Amino acid sequence: MTQKATFYHAGCPVCVSAEQGLAHALNPAAYNVEIVHLGEAPNRIAEAEAAGVKSVPALVIEGQPYHINFGASLADVKSAA
Amino acid sequence: MTQKATFYHAGCPVCVSAEQGLAHALNPAAYNVEIVHLGEAPNRIAEAEAAGVKSVPALVIEGQPYHINFGASLADVKSAA
Repeated sequence: MTQKATFYHAGCPVCVSAEQGLAHALNPAAYNVEIVHLGEAPNRIAEAEAAGVKSVPALVIEGQPYHINFGASLADVKSAA
Repeated sequence: MTQKATFYHAGCPVCVSAEQGLAHALNPAAYNVEIVHLGEAPNRIAEAEAAGVKSVPALVIEGQPYHINFGASLADVKSAA
């Protein structure tokens, strides 16, 4: 059975690096990874925020937010959306 | 063939959460994950620094550092070591 992992990003260079290096490195037998571009899907921003995401890129695994390096704050993503 | 991933931490609560939630979530078929506690192995601090690690917890995958949330700066780990 796979668990849900969501990778939130905003298309920034730091985001792309984290997606390729880390989001795709998760165990495919254990995690079903969804990639969400908050710039293209601003309707998902509230959900990211509710999960505790403060900046992108971030991975939410089993409800726990893990901020990976720093690309942009969620506030900046919101104001650009 | 597995690639090397190194998870550097300092035993802090943020580190423990990231180790359990993220370091152990990597694909075991692709990554050989080494866990390094810099408080217990201060001789590894220089290596983490050389890889670009600025704070712990951090994962270095294929030479790329990914800082995960924020537990402590490497400077604080050094001064405590």
